[in-house]
Amino acid sequence: MKLLDLYAKMKGDLDAIERELAHSVTSDHALLSETSTHLLKAGGKRIRPVFVLLAGKFGDYRLDVLERIAVPLELIHMSSLVHDDVIDNAQTRRGQLTVKSKWDNRIAMFTGDYIFGKALTVVAELNNPHIHQILSKAMVQMCVGEIEQIRDFFNTEQSVRNYLRRIRRKTALLIAISCQLGAVAAGAERGIANALYRFGYNVGMAYQIGDDLLDLLGTEKQIGKPPGSDIRQGNITLPVLMALQEPEIRDALLAEIIKIRESDGAGDMKAVLNIIRKSKGINSSQDLANRFIAKAIAALDQLPGIPAKKNLSDIARFVAKRNY
Amino acid sequence: MKLLDLYAKMKGDLDAIERELAHSVTSDHALLSETSTHLLKAGGKRIRPVFVLLAGKFGDYRLDVLERIAVPLELIHMSSLVHDDVIDNAQTRRGQLTVKSKWDNRIAMFTGDYIFGKALTVVAELNNPHIHQILSKAMVQMCVGEIEQIRDFFNTEQSVRNYLRRIRRKTALLIAISCQLGAVAAGAERGIANALYRFGYNVGMAYQIGDDLLDLLGTEKQIGKPPGSDIRQGNITLPVLMALQEPEIRDALLAEIIKIRESDGAGDMKAVLNIIRKSKGINSSQDLANRFIAKAIAALDQLPGIPAKKNLSDIARFVAKRNY
Repeated sequence: MKLLDLYAKMKGDLDAIERELAHSVTSDHALLSETSTHLLKAGGKRIRPVFVLLAGKFGDYRLDVLERIAVPLELIHMSSLVHDDVIDNAQTRRGQLTVKSKWDNRIAMFTGDYIFGKALTVVAELNNPHIHQILSKAMVQMCVGEIEQIRDFFNTEQSVRNYLRRIRRKTALLIAISCQLGAVAAGAERGIANALYRFGYNVGMAYQIGDDLLDLLGTEKQIGKPPGSDIRQGNITLPVLMALQEPEIRDALLAEIIKIRESDGAGDMKAVLNIIRKSKGINSSQDLANRFIAKAIAALDQLPGIPAKKNLSDIARFVAKRNY
Repeated sequence: MKLLDLYAKMKGDLDAIERELAHSVTSDHALLSETSTHLLKAGGKRIRPVFVLLAGKFGDYRLDVLERIAVPLELIHMSSLVHDDVIDNAQTRRGQLTVKSKWDNRIAMFTGDYIFGKALTVVAELNNPHIHQILSKAMVQMCVGEIEQIRDFFNTEQSVRNYLRRIRRKTALLIAISCQLGAVAAGAERGIANALYRFGYNVGMAYQIGDDLLDLLGTEKQIGKPPGSDIRQGNITLPVLMALQEPEIRDALLAEIIKIRESDGAGDMKAVLNIIRKSKGINSSQDLANRFIAKAIAALDQLPGIPAKKNLSDIARFVAKRNY
C-alpha cells in the first residue's frame, strides 16, 4: 500500500487526533493558544500518531484510549521542536516562521513548556502508571540528547558511535515509545509491545539519518529551510563524520567547517556542501539507514499477520526510499 | 515553635529528601548533573517539601511515599527558576551565579527541561492518577502565569487583580498543591486535602507579595541580587501598582519606570526605589499579605488538632513577619 493510501484509510481516526491536538492547546490563554496553533498548523507528517494507531491494532483498538497516547506524543514532539528552534536560532521550519522568530525566544521557551504541560494533562487521563514511567524516562533521555547535541556542536572529532547515541535519544526513542505505548495502551502482550519498540527505534534511527541527509542534499523548498542548516549551527551529522574519514577531502572539509564556525553562521554554504555531496559519506550514510530499516522490518517478524503489520513495514520501506 | 526548631525537628526526613533530590538529578549525563547540582546547592528553604511532609501528617505518614511528592515538587520549582532566569537575564540568584550565566541560555533551557523530566520520573513511581492530574494541570497554569508575566512587562496600567491572578499561577498554585498532594498521597480525606490546598494557596499569595516587597526593600545581601531587579526587568509588582495609584507620586514614578525601560536595564535604580519606598504602596501591600495569611490560618480551622496544624500556622505567621 502506498503511504498516501494508508493515510487515506486512517483519515477518520487521524482527523479525530487532529481535532484533539487543536483542542488540547487552546483555551487557557490567548497568546499561548496562538503560538501553539501556529505550530500545529505548520503541519508535519504526524508519524507518531500513525504509529500509535497502528500499534494499537495489535491489542484492543479503542480510539478514545489511543488518542490519549497519540496526542501527548505529538505534543511532546512539538514542544521539543520549539525548544530546538530557540537553540538553533532557526527562522523557519517547514517553510513557516518559527515561534521564536514570529514572537521571541522567551515566548518560544514557555510555549514549549506549556505544550509539554498540556501533553501531561492529556496522558494523565489514562490510569496506567507503566505508561507514565515509560514516557517520563524517555523525556529525560531526550533532554540528555539535546544537551549532547549542544556539547558536540562543531566537534569534528566525535565518533560515529557518538552521533548514533545522540540521535537515538533525540529522535529514535520517541518514535520507539510511540509504537510501544500504542500497544501497551491497547493491552497488547508485552512481547508484542517490545517488538514494536524495536521496530520504532530502528525506523527512528533511519529516519533521522534520512533527515540529516536531506539537510545536505535537498533544496530549500523540500527542506523548508536553507540546505546545510545543520552544519551552519554546528550540528555535525553522520554524512559529514563519514566524509571526514576520507583522507583526500578531510583537510579541505575541516577548513570549510572552521570557516563556517568563525563566520558565526553568516558564511556561504556552497563550498562545504559541494565537498560533502561528492564524498562517499552520502552513500555510506544511506547504507547505514538501510540497515536500520532492515532491522525494523525484522523486528516485525514475531508479530501476528494483521494488516497493520504490512502497513508498518510499508512505512519503514518508505522511510528508506526518501528521495533527496 | 520557631521556624528553626521546626526544621530541626523535621531534619531527619528533610535530609532524606535532600539526598533524594541530589540522587534524582545525577547519573544521566555529566554536564546535566553538574548544572542541576549547582542549582540544588544554591539551596533554598525547601518550603514545598516541608509543606508536603506536614500535610502528610494528616493521613498515613509514610516518608517513602511523601518523598515521591516532595522531590518532584521541589524539582519542578527549580526547573521553573532556571527557565525564569533565562527570561529575566538574571546573573545571580541567592547570591550564586545562575545556570544561564555560568553556562549559557541554551544549557539553562535544557537543564530546566531535564529537571522537569526527572520530576516526572519520580512521581511516576506513584500509582495514583489523581496526583498526575493535579500536577499536570498546575504545570499548565504555571506556564500561563509565566507568559502573562512576559506580556505584562512594563505594563503600568495593569490592575491589581491582574497582578494577583499572575502570582496565583506563578507561585501560589505550586505551594497549594504541595499541601494538597501531601495529604492526597497520605490518603487523607478529600475535605482535609482541600483545606490544606486553601491554606497553601493563601500562604503562597502572601509569600509572593512578601518576595516582591523584599525586592524593593531588602539589601543586595538579603535578596541575593540587586534590589529593584523586578522593575529593572519590567515586572511591575503590587507595591509599585499601589504606589502608581497615589496621585502625588504617579507622574514621577511613571517617568522613572519609562527611564528604566529605555535604559534597557542599565539605568540607576536609586530614584525609583526611593519613590516606591516612601509610598503607601509598601504598607498597603503588607496589609494585603497579612489578609492572605489570616485566610490561610482560617483554612486550618477545620483540620484536626495534631501538632502539624500548629506547625503550619507557625509557618504562615513567619511568612507574614518577614523583615525587610
